[in-house]
Amino acid sequence: MKKAAIVGASGYSGEELVRLLLNHPHVELVAVTSRQSAGQTVAQVFPKFASHPKSRTLRFTEPNAELLAKQAEIVFLALPHGVAAEFAVPLTQAGCIVIDLSADFRLKSAEVYKEFYVHDHPAPELLKKSVYGLPEVYRKQIKDALLVASPGCYPTSILLPTLPLLRAKLINPNSIIADSLSGVSGAGRKAEADYLFCECNESVRPYGVPKHRHLSEIEEQLSFAAGANVTIQFTPHLIPVNRGILTTLYLAPTEHFADGAAAAAFGEKITACYQGAYATEPFIRLLDGKALPDTKNVVGTNVVEIAWRLDPRTGRLIVMSAEDNIVKGASGQAVQSMNIVCGFPETAGLV
Amino acid sequence: MKKAAIVGASGYSGEELVRLLLNHPHVELVAVTSRQSAGQTVAQVFPKFASHPKSRTLRFTEPNAELLAKQAEIVFLALPHGVAAEFAVPLTQAGCIVIDLSADFRLKSAEVYKEFYVHDHPAPELLKKSVYGLPEVYRKQIKDALLVASPGCYPTSILLPTLPLLRAKLINPNSIIADSLSGVSGAGRKAEADYLFCECNESVRPYGVPKHRHLSEIEEQLSFAAGANVTIQFTPHLIPVNRGILTTLYLAPTEHFADGAAAAAFGEKITACYQGAYATEPFIRLLDGKALPDTKNVVGTNVVEIAWRLDPRTGRLIVMSAEDNIVKGASGQAVQSMNIVCGFPETAGLV
Amino acid sequence: MKKAAIVGASGYSGEELVRLLLNHPHVELVAVTSRQSAGQTVAQVFPKFASHPKSRTLRFTEPNAELLAKQAEIVFLALPHGVAAEFAVPLTQAGCIVIDLSADFRLKSAEVYKEFYVHDHPAPELLKKSVYGLPEVYRKQIKDALLVASPGCYPTSILLPTLPLLRAKLINPNSIIADSLSGVSGAGRKAEADYLFCECNESVRPYGVPKHRHLSEIEEQLSFAAGANVTIQFTPHLIPVNRGILTTLYLAPTEHFADGAAAAAFGEKITACYQGAYATEPFIRLLDGKALPDTKNVVGTNVVEIAWRLDPRTGRLIVMSAEDNIVKGASGQAVQSMNIVCGFPETAGLV
Amino acid sequence: MKKAAIVGASGYSGEELVRLLLNHPHVELVAVTSRQSAGQTVAQVFPKFASHPKSRTLRFTEPNAELLAKQAEIVFLALPHGVAAEFAVPLTQAGCIVIDLSADFRLKSAEVYKEFYVHDHPAPELLKKSVYGLPEVYRKQIKDALLVASPGCYPTSILLPTLPLLRAKLINPNSIIADSLSGVSGAGRKAEADYLFCECNESVRPYGVPKHRHLSEIEEQLSFAAGANVTIQFTPHLIPVNRGILTTLYLAPTEHFADGAAAAAFGEKITACYQGAYATEPFIRLLDGKALPDTKNVVGTNVVEIAWRLDPRTGRLIVMSAEDNIVKGASGQAVQSMNIVCGFPETAGLV
Repeated sequence: MKKAAIVGASGYSGEELVRLLLNHPHVELVAVTSRQSAGQTVAQVFPKFASHPKSRTLRFTEPNAELLAKQAEIVFLALPHGVAAEFAVPLTQAGCIVIDLSADFRLKSAEVYKEFYVHDHPAPELLKKSVYGLPEVYRKQIKDALLVASPGCYPTSILLPTLPLLRAKLINPNSIIADSLSGVSGAGRKAEADYLFCECNESVRPYGVPKHRHLSEIEEQLSFAAGANVTIQFTPHLIPVNRGILTTLYLAPTEHFADGAAAAAFGEKITACYQGAYATEPFIRLLDGKALPDTKNVVGTNVVEIAWRLDPRTGRLIVMSAEDNIVKGASGQAVQSMNIVCGFPETAGLV
Repeated sequence: MKKAAIVGASGYSGEELVRLLLNHPHVELVAVTSRQSAGQTVAQVFPKFASHPKSRTLRFTEPNAELLAKQAEIVFLALPHGVAAEFAVPLTQAGCIVIDLSADFRLKSAEVYKEFYVHDHPAPELLKKSVYGLPEVYRKQIKDALLVASPGCYPTSILLPTLPLLRAKLINPNSIIADSLSGVSGAGRKAEADYLFCECNESVRPYGVPKHRHLSEIEEQLSFAAGANVTIQFTPHLIPVNRGILTTLYLAPTEHFADGAAAAAFGEKITACYQGAYATEPFIRLLDGKALPDTKNVVGTNVVEIAWRLDPRTGRLIVMSAEDNIVKGASGQAVQSMNIVCGFPETAGLV
Repeated sequence: MKKAAIVGASGYSGEELVRLLLNHPHVELVAVTSRQSAGQTVAQVFPKFASHPKSRTLRFTEPNAELLAKQAEIVFLALPHGVAAEFAVPLTQAGCIVIDLSADFRLKSAEVYKEFYVHDHPAPELLKKSVYGLPEVYRKQIKDALLVASPGCYPTSILLPTLPLLRAKLINPNSIIADSLSGVSGAGRKAEADYLFCECNESVRPYGVPKHRHLSEIEEQLSFAAGANVTIQFTPHLIPVNRGILTTLYLAPTEHFADGAAAAAFGEKITACYQGAYATEPFIRLLDGKALPDTKNVVGTNVVEIAWRLDPRTGRLIVMSAEDNIVKGASGQAVQSMNIVCGFPETAGLV
Repeated sequence: MKKAAIVGASGYSGEELVRLLLNHPHVELVAVTSRQSAGQTVAQVFPKFASHPKSRTLRFTEPNAELLAKQAEIVFLALPHGVAAEFAVPLTQAGCIVIDLSADFRLKSAEVYKEFYVHDHPAPELLKKSVYGLPEVYRKQIKDALLVASPGCYPTSILLPTLPLLRAKLINPNSIIADSLSGVSGAGRKAEADYLFCECNESVRPYGVPKHRHLSEIEEQLSFAAGANVTIQFTPHLIPVNRGILTTLYLAPTEHFADGAAAAAFGEKITACYQGAYATEPFIRLLDGKALPDTKNVVGTNVVEIAWRLDPRTGRLIVMSAEDNIVKGASGQAVQSMNIVCGFPETAGLV
């Protein structure tokens, strides 16, 4: 049993980490911090976990990096960007494994960070050491990482379906359009009027058009896969569900198919590409037949559903993905990375 | 055309008043105030009203009683309790008709006010002059009122079905149990974590058990009708809909019926009682046959649906009502009272 | 007062037509038909309309074209495709003005109809006489029409934002990608398991990928505007709201802008284009500043909200629209056409 | 590993049984039946379970009692009342343990069954052998049962909070009023217009007033506990959430308390009563402090939350409970009973 702590455990990602770690077979949750909840037990802050005996004894504390480094071998940071770095620096120096769910260490370029987050990177020297925590891509590097930068929810839903196609050169890198629909938990547990029930219920709306911050990590990863700078189009929308991201991708194949036979042949390449990349991945479900992704089939799980269609009328490739933004898009993926770092079975505590 | 103003127009009741008054055939909306929205047009604050020409010229201002008294003949107060009185005093002194949607002038007793609202009444001398704005009961008094205290949303849903039965002595006054289910707009447009989408969606919960503030005005009105002090049981619940209150009332008939014939005879008395009270009321819909109230049939309207059932197994009378908490439970009823005070057709601007 | 009838009045579009026509200042609703509801009053089938006196006397009947032709001057058909034509033929022959909400007369080409609807067109000779009921485009032709083919909900949300740009040659016709999000009422009031509450709530999903039937009328209209055959990409998604369509369009401008100044100049052309097309349209709201469309701002109204953004990073133009799929996307637009045909003010009964 | 089968596995309770049994540590799911899904794999019918390897090999079959008796040691019946008995008879005769989720064997009286279900009981001789599957009450009897009649969702939410009070004679048996709010899954996966998304969303409504079928088993169990015939008041309401029942109970204490001290003393008796009954129960969570039940804290779990308040103003006791209607109200409780019958740890597969 490894000892783990969660810093910033009162938000939606933090709450999900609490759930996953309370039930993890190889981890003991030894500390949870939250300025606003300090002093209360986990059961008091999250009544839904009150049936777990530990929830009635474990109390939230004020965050304190020095203390955490003594208590825990693994520390999850579920903090706003900018703040996460303040903990990552001392904790990694003290030898803790840090799994950071913020955006602070996802980019390799401190300049791009500044462009998108509008302040200097707080710890640029750590950018080289951090590993982007997308296990399906960086499993090997995660294994030896001391600092894992767990990907954003939108990036996960966009990168997993596109990276294999880009690496196989089946799509034009600069054709990518990603249209994403997110549940309201993506906005966090912030008391802002925009996210009140009556403002979101019976409402569908785009936001952050055209330059959302997640573009920075999406494009950096796509560029690595394409071996060239990639710029994409991305539009997020807010949808009245608690959880789930549905992403629809519009892609230009690198081949033009004159007839049905050519299209079918290209379709087989796509199938082979996805099968090669993901057939044995425990958390990627490639849909076949007439099935299309539906967030209700993945909510509460660490699974991403992916389906694709070639459109013979337009020559475009449509790829759709569904994930739980708080699990595979945040806390579940973070635990998956921890499992890899610690040598646990990768699915431990996630099924 | 009478000139009207709304003080506190940026909340849900205020917004609904804006909608109703922008489209009212006999009223010109001349001023809307809100500290947080001052300087913006109605169209900017409420994009949904932007197609109304006036919305693009009318700007929110800081509230100022002196100025309002010069601009408007009728002033609606959509303010928190305690604050409303600060405007009601100077405005009524200046000769304005004041329609107050807060709890400040609903009670006749300043002592009961203090018991339930935990501060001294800010203007006890005005309590005698105010009229409780339930038109189906106080139409005559509203006609001559300078200060109308528009009822709360729960009280409206409870009083309309019970008052005729009490006055006809068909039910035992101290038997009343009211179980109410309210949409989230009832909590107002407050940026509090409890009312975030993800905290309310997929959640059903009671609150304020057992002593909700609305009990004070409910019991005062019931006591007037019964001619004796009435104490009731009331449990509000929060339900994930934007609007609507569904109230189920458990009542003890004053007669016990030994058999079906006796029950049928008593049922005829109830029918006669409701018909006598409400058959010609434009905003009360007595359901017949198998129909039961459903909030979706009243949302967006000033109508209250009422149905009842006698239970031969228990001898109890079950009465159910449905209303839109923001219309008949707040702003629509306030406009209905204004129509009466001003001598407009009572349904003007409400259908 | 003109006499109007609704055939197929028990579905969602039919219900909304009932609402609009019961309250229309220049129309008397004289007949509503529905096989399943025949014999019941409007108030019984739609309790929410029960406060309208007419709802308690007007009864649903079995549909009978001959009888309808005697009763009504205007007949709305809210029927499935294929069935609508069976009524349109005799009713137009009898001299009635027919406003058809089905897909039967929206296309000029019977071949395209067969390709998309998989059966021969039931009355190809009427295709020449029908007018596509998009008032902002065909107002003049609607004026003299005897048969108006009211557009589909998705086509309305896609055509209104794109047609002016196409006509002004500001976008590449074959670049159009339309990503649409629809409320569940778009599926109609059909008792199918896919549309049960528990199957739609907490679910977000694409469907009909890549060849939805509405493509036929969208592409025909786009082709007319472009003066050449246009093929587009279209992906509909089902979202857990009752009403509303949010469409996000990805478009390639015909100009490439090397710098911010060039982009700003092109932006001014777009503004001028939309202003020229829609500045005086009563039901189109061009958003400015930071505002983006939100279905909650248009639900219950006949308004379409439109906003656009040029993305300097990708060179693309993003246009977003929001409408109520049952009002501007169906019944409201049908009433708007009726107003034009009958010489009523175009906004009569719609605000 | 015991072999288990589910008859009628395509409804909501059946689906939840599939989920629970696929993941149960001591059970192998060997057969699932459904007329409409016969031939398809579990993964095809329920894509959300597709990551479980077994879901891709296990196929739905037509239900056949003889065959099931050979395949499985334990058979769950998730069938409509009346139909369940057709399988229970041959399966129990063949020596299978039958856990029936229908109403067929919940009553001891065939006459009461006929009164409430309006047909003769199909297998009255089995009524004597069946055990009411409420483990917190009948754990000992369930241990030796061959036929467990798993309780209804409303009965579970009403009986668990009331039975200890009745047995301790703390409440008047004939005072009980139960007001229940249920998510839409309670209506089953039936393609009926009443349960379409647009008919339930933004709607709150009572139904089945005043004589719901579940009254029969509720009153039979209450009568056993009270040692006398008990008749109660029960009103179910439909609420737009997928899952969850919130029940508010209005009860008359057997003691009247003249002052606060007397009330406090009585409150201690209630606390002691609940603690005595449930302190060690793994699936009952007695709330303390200011906490009130909320369905979102129990959805997806087998837990019932219970809180109570004495109202000094009325002398009444208000008790509130929350459960997941499909888990503790159906499939989870059925698995809990199976665990007891089979000698597994009672919480196996349920946490």
